[in-house]
Amino acid sequence: MFGTLFNRVKMACAGSLAIAVNFVAIAADGEAPKTPKTTAEIIAAAPASDWRDVAASDLLVMDLTQGQIFIELATRFAPLHSANIRTLSHQGFFDGLAIMRVQDNYVTQWGDPNDDDPKLAKSLGDAKTKLPAEFFIPFKGLPITPIKDVDGWAPVTGYVDGFPVAADPKKNKAWLTHCYGMVGAARGQPTDSSNGTGLYAIIGHAPRGLDLNITVVGRVLRGMEYLSALPRGGATMGFYDKPEHYVGITKVRLASDISEAERPKLEVLKTDSKSWASVLDSRRNRSGWFVHSFGHTEVCASSVPVRNKPAQ
Amino acid sequence: MFGTLFNRVKMACAGSLAIAVNFVAIAADGEAPKTPKTTAEIIAAAPASDWRDVAASDLLVMDLTQGQIFIELATRFAPLHSANIRTLSHQGFFDGLAIMRVQDNYVTQWGDPNDDDPKLAKSLGDAKTKLPAEFFIPFKGLPITPIKDVDGWAPVTGYVDGFPVAADPKKNKAWLTHCYGMVGAARGQPTDSSNGTGLYAIIGHAPRGLDLNITVVGRVLRGMEYLSALPRGGATMGFYDKPEHYVGITKVRLASDISEAERPKLEVLKTDSKSWASVLDSRRNRSGWFVHSFGHTEVCASSVPVRNKPAQ
Repeated sequence: MFGTLFNRVKMACAGSLAIAVNFVAIAADGEAPKTPKTTAEIIAAAPASDWRDVAASDLLVMDLTQGQIFIELATRFAPLHSANIRTLSHQGFFDGLAIMRVQDNYVTQWGDPNDDDPKLAKSLGDAKTKLPAEFFIPFKGLPITPIKDVDGWAPVTGYVDGFPVAADPKKNKAWLTHCYGMVGAARGQPTDSSNGTGLYAIIGHAPRGLDLNITVVGRVLRGMEYLSALPRGGATMGFYDKPEHYVGITKVRLASDISEAERPKLEVLKTDSKSWASVLDSRRNRSGWFVHSFGHTEVCASSVPVRNKPAQ
Repeated sequence: MFGTLFNRVKMACAGSLAIAVNFVAIAADGEAPKTPKTTAEIIAAAPASDWRDVAASDLLVMDLTQGQIFIELATRFAPLHSANIRTLSHQGFFDGLAIMRVQDNYVTQWGDPNDDDPKLAKSLGDAKTKLPAEFFIPFKGLPITPIKDVDGWAPVTGYVDGFPVAADPKKNKAWLTHCYGMVGAARGQPTDSSNGTGLYAIIGHAPRGLDLNITVVGRVLRGMEYLSALPRGGATMGFYDKPEHYVGITKVRLASDISEAERPKLEVLKTDSKSWASVLDSRRNRSGWFVHSFGHTEVCASSVPVRNKPAQ
């Protein structure tokens, strides 16, 4: 029982997309399929046509001393915030700013620590100071790939362009949902008080009650571990209680502002592909280490795979 | 727009139980109640009779250099694992062991780094090396406080003794569900290969597909931030790739083994109380900063409140 394997594979196969391990299926209670492909195998076998490029103009590259974070802007859902964040990033607005809030099981938030002081606040330059709220878009005509699984928060859930989405067809509303790794634009009391200068990422259980209350602007494609493993703030709502605890942002650039040679090139698995459908099925019907499958998944239970664009 | 308040309250009211802030309710879309009490107000107003003591014999106190972690054993759901963990803790088994795995959006796992080497492995002393799986208990007769909210994973969800629970009455099964902060006993391939020497805590979106596949033994009552903010491991499944990255466990004691004078005394809000029902209602029907309420919550969306036992 104390073999290396035992120690290393405790909990094996039990986790996120990143860890699917190729176990031989074991005898289960009849609910697990007999010839299952692991999630990792499905992703590895996905044809090139099941991947799409992340547009350089939608890709933010955020440098912390801890590491690099890649965020894809959800232009379809938040066109005005995305445009403003592009302008801000292009101008170097975020360079030298800071992460000021890390609240456990909730959010990591960053922006300008001096935005409460007109003398010290960083100029927004060509960016807009005021934007309308972008909490939802019309459901009609949206190319959503719905999932069949019952969800308590919305009548429809699924994926659009690789982003997790919920929708209410009767109200003709669709919105990005606050799964782990989603990025939103902090706002104050007025619903139109966000402009993209303050952003947050979800670092805990999906707070889906936030949906339709705030503008979601994108998703962290890579580097979540640099946002999720920061020390939690000691003040109310997880703000750092001392400025010296702030985590500095070295710089944020749009990939399209980076020279072709140095530009990161990422791909996201298409969520209207057969491969993604198979990934979700592999999550509904677990195999290997698992002895029970629920035949169920949920929109926030799986992250859409990301990879480096293969060399041509 | 750059007032201190604006900066500080961005996202205010939007979060976990810990952060409810007393805002004046703003005009909403009609779905938010007009005279709402915040979650914090409800908890503050809970009568003494709505709180219960955490039994000293069920309370683990785990010391890291980062801070102290309090874990309540779920004796009703995992009596054999709980007993074994008590024996192990009483013997000082965990003292000097380590956290060896931190997988982002998933688990932090600890135990004996040498358990694969019979010569170096720490003795289990009077504890059992082998236990049966304790994946579920009978639903019949269980004093569950169900919630009315639709859940895709189980026909019934709710709370028992302050722990989040899911159940299938037709199959007469009830089980602890893998919400944020729940603690389980790592196992290998055989379902009966856990004995409590290796444990994990959930540090991300609730991986509810793990339910019924592994023995859940308790809940972190305090100190999650010391488990969730650790650097993620670089090897497969988030294991630290070098032993020098291991996070040492100074010691783990049962509160009942700590002198009366130094013993921590915690209380948990009773989940069969009116106060807890009100907390859940306040989560279904948001107020203040929120302009949309879903009229819905889920079993993993709220953590049951914990406090120091007030001086008599």
